[in-house]
Amino acid sequence: MKFSLAFLGPSGTYAEAAALACSQWWKRQSAIVPELVPYPSIAQTLQAVAQRETQLAIVPVENSTEGSVTTTLDTLWQLDTLQIQQAWVLPISHALISRAGHSANIQTVYSHPQALAQCQEWLERYLPDVKLIPTRSTTEALQHLTEPSAGAIASCRAAQLYGLPVLAHPINDRPDNCTKFWVLGQDAVHYELGANACESSPTGRHTSLAFSLPANVPGALLRPLEIFAHRGINMSRIESRPTKRSLGEYLFFVDIEATLADPSIRSMLDDLTSHTETLKIFGSYSIFLADDLMPLEEQD
Amino acid sequence: MKFSLAFLGPSGTYAEAAALACSQWWKRQSAIVPELVPYPSIAQTLQAVAQRETQLAIVPVENSTEGSVTTTLDTLWQLDTLQIQQAWVLPISHALISRAGHSANIQTVYSHPQALAQCQEWLERYLPDVKLIPTRSTTEALQHLTEPSAGAIASCRAAQLYGLPVLAHPINDRPDNCTKFWVLGQDAVHYELGANACESSPTGRHTSLAFSLPANVPGALLRPLEIFAHRGINMSRIESRPTKRSLGEYLFFVDIEATLADPSIRSMLDDLTSHTETLKIFGSYSIFLADDLMPLEEQD
Repeated sequence: MKFSLAFLGPSGTYAEAAALACSQWWKRQSAIVPELVPYPSIAQTLQAVAQRETQLAIVPVENSTEGSVTTTLDTLWQLDTLQIQQAWVLPISHALISRAGHSANIQTVYSHPQALAQCQEWLERYLPDVKLIPTRSTTEALQHLTEPSAGAIASCRAAQLYGLPVLAHPINDRPDNCTKFWVLGQDAVHYELGANACESSPTGRHTSLAFSLPANVPGALLRPLEIFAHRGINMSRIESRPTKRSLGEYLFFVDIEATLADPSIRSMLDDLTSHTETLKIFGSYSIFLADDLMPLEEQD
Repeated sequence: MKFSLAFLGPSGTYAEAAALACSQWWKRQSAIVPELVPYPSIAQTLQAVAQRETQLAIVPVENSTEGSVTTTLDTLWQLDTLQIQQAWVLPISHALISRAGHSANIQTVYSHPQALAQCQEWLERYLPDVKLIPTRSTTEALQHLTEPSAGAIASCRAAQLYGLPVLAHPINDRPDNCTKFWVLGQDAVHYELGANACESSPTGRHTSLAFSLPANVPGALLRPLEIFAHRGINMSRIESRPTKRSLGEYLFFVDIEATLADPSIRSMLDDLTSHTETLKIFGSYSIFLADDLMPLEEQD
């Protein structure tokens, strides 16, 4: 089996840019370059690695403006076996792409709902009368540019890839807009790459986990948070998701600044099992910055 | 100014069904029936009441399968003056609507992304090869049914309203699928309705609030949760949203089972201000069940 990395396609998406950054990292570390395999949805990208069609998958998990990518969290909870190997933070810089010649000629703008939301103030200011149409990916939006009055929001890289003109860039409302991606694999995938193998970073300083709580226990969320606080462990993120059983029942996705390589953290997580209904540990990993595919810098 | 209620239109949406339930409640309580005014987006629905175009607005806040409606939370944080007057829980039952005669003839299914997500397993099982196209509302999806190979997911009520055939119902994956809506107004709106006025319920048993935390303080989230727990107050929901400043900075939206009519709760919230950066209180309210517009039952 070739070493392969599933991503949310098609070519030209921000997920592909993150996949390329990850692929360059593997090349630098081990000279093994994973083959990039596009999938049409986040759920299918994660299922590819769960069903061992690919060794790794890269999926968006959180954007600085729009928040969590809930499909990623919900699918990860359902698929029991995946472990986070790395996180990548990709700066997101949107462009208005069109054959209209001038933005005043644009009547309709197509893009992924998150990209439309991230450029909302710019669109209200410069194109207040255009119709906004959601698409499944930023790349799919480019397919509508055969209409001369159509515009699309995607990356400059996508415009270049498909030979389309950029009319304005950057157009995102927040200049520091960025998206975090997780690279996931089956538990021990990083050991199976042969003589040149390197670990993606199972001992990184960030650990992600999720838990459900016993029903109808007031203050039940407090106990897990106290366990972290009493050991001086910073919780960098908490996100609630519905259990989908009934309104008002939640799962909690938590990121802590700690590593499973530390035995005391493992014992703390043992304590946690007695205060949660179901506890799932998604692994320890490092966070890398993917800066326009330039030389990569590790944040840690 | 006529007594009016802004909702996410157009006619036939689930938001309109919730608005009708709310409107019937007002009629029963005070004989004043609010005029329903459709708006094209959640942000515009909330701005309508913030700018006093209408006295009240009803917006979706949370679905039992898909979780929080993030636009509602983000807009509410930005608009400082709105207070929750009531909450309504609406059972959501989706139908496959089409002129195709039989579902085997359907090639494309249109609907709001949340409705598509809520019927995902049904679609994969019975229509695995159809193309799924997101629309801005379930009602907008019905406009595509001029194509004979098109299907739409919306309510039976919408199908009836537009005279369209229902091919399958219910098709949502979870039978207990429901959405919670908030009715919001300016602080004192419910007192301004004249001699027949009644309060929508400013003394209800549920209170919603949101806060940001001082930056770079490990365990900062623990203090507010301890303040609730030490007074025996159950926190029924916690939801994090990005501050949109930088990745890893959050606001927290919290629902507690307590009323601002209780002076000890007001003093607890005073304590909370010293452990939060910004604290916003969205009011106390009761939760009602809107059961297919049949006689309403109050859950409290």
